[in-house]
Amino acid sequence: MARWEPNAWERLERAALALFAERGYDATTVPEIADRAGLTKSTFFRHFADKREVVFGRQDMLAELFSDAIRAAGPSATIGDCLAAALESAAPGLTPERHDLAVQRRAIIAANSELQERELLKRARLTSAIADALRAHGADETTADLAAALGVLAFSTAFARWAAPENRQPYTEIARTTLRDLQSRAAGLAADTEVRA
Amino acid sequence: MARWEPNAWERLERAALALFAERGYDATTVPEIADRAGLTKSTFFRHFADKREVVFGRQDMLAELFSDAIRAAGPSATIGDCLAAALESAAPGLTPERHDLAVQRRAIIAANSELQERELLKRARLTSAIADALRAHGADETTADLAAALGVLAFSTAFARWAAPENRQPYTEIARTTLRDLQSRAAGLAADTEVRA
Repeated sequence: MARWEPNAWERLERAALALFAERGYDATTVPEIADRAGLTKSTFFRHFADKREVVFGRQDMLAELFSDAIRAAGPSATIGDCLAAALESAAPGLTPERHDLAVQRRAIIAANSELQERELLKRARLTSAIADALRAHGADETTADLAAALGVLAFSTAFARWAAPENRQPYTEIARTTLRDLQSRAAGLAADTEVRA
Repeated sequence: MARWEPNAWERLERAALALFAERGYDATTVPEIADRAGLTKSTFFRHFADKREVVFGRQDMLAELFSDAIRAAGPSATIGDCLAAALESAAPGLTPERHDLAVQRRAIIAANSELQERELLKRARLTSAIADALRAHGADETTADLAAALGVLAFSTAFARWAAPENRQPYTEIARTTLRDLQSRAAGLAADTEVRA
């Protein structure tokens, strides 16, 4: 029967990311991760299906967090408000204590083409989830797709800025600024053609 | 030595898509495709690495076509002009004679999750290619990413509208309208927050 393993999830995540950074993702095995965390292999498999899930476990929660935040927005919330609420919902996982993990994680993905491919797919799924939530909120098909693309780009840009090794600015501040910045650039892109239309 | 095989590429593509539609993608083999096209298996492999490439062969050309079109745009071209040129560069492959193939292809991808995943990756790569070309044109990092996201969404929306079974409107017209429509919606998304900023 399962022993009580305080913070097993976080301990395994930290051990895995450290090992991936030291030895490379491909060269690291699940028993090594469990061992480094001071836990057993079966504890690992109670928390993660495989080692790839350690890299993407938190990201898998985002689609749900973002959708919930949009569904929780009142009927008077504009699409911009919905996107802002979605981005803000990621804040509890992006704290100063988790900054070093995010830095490691980005480096590990950047060094492995299979993980990069996986990340692109996760991002595409995140975009669909946001678009679905925006449609449920009342946006039409095309506006929902466009706003979702803008929202995911705002999130990944904000996340990359937050997870830069030297960054100390809180995620929420960065996310707000990035979203507003992208929205005003979107207006610029539109104006650019209006002139010639 | 290779015999002269007029239009082998197109014959194989047509045969493959017809078989995928009839029997399913997974159940169709390369020898069956070659046979249906009246060609040999070795001819198939001179044109395609595997059967998946028959589905995505044309799509793989898009990244290059789009980048070339943006690179060919003069220095006075705005980002909107670049996107319009990119979308227009796909027109020679999207003719009325190829409409039935596009309809089939969409249905085949929609029925197979592995192909759907592959399509999402192709779309992500297309986005990167456009962003790179826009940066080479002088756009800053973030604007290039945003414009590329908008451009790929405009292309996939226009393509889906063109490839709808009942559509008879030429691709170029649809692409122009769709791009303009997305640009004005982008302005709307921006305005929505300006009010509250």
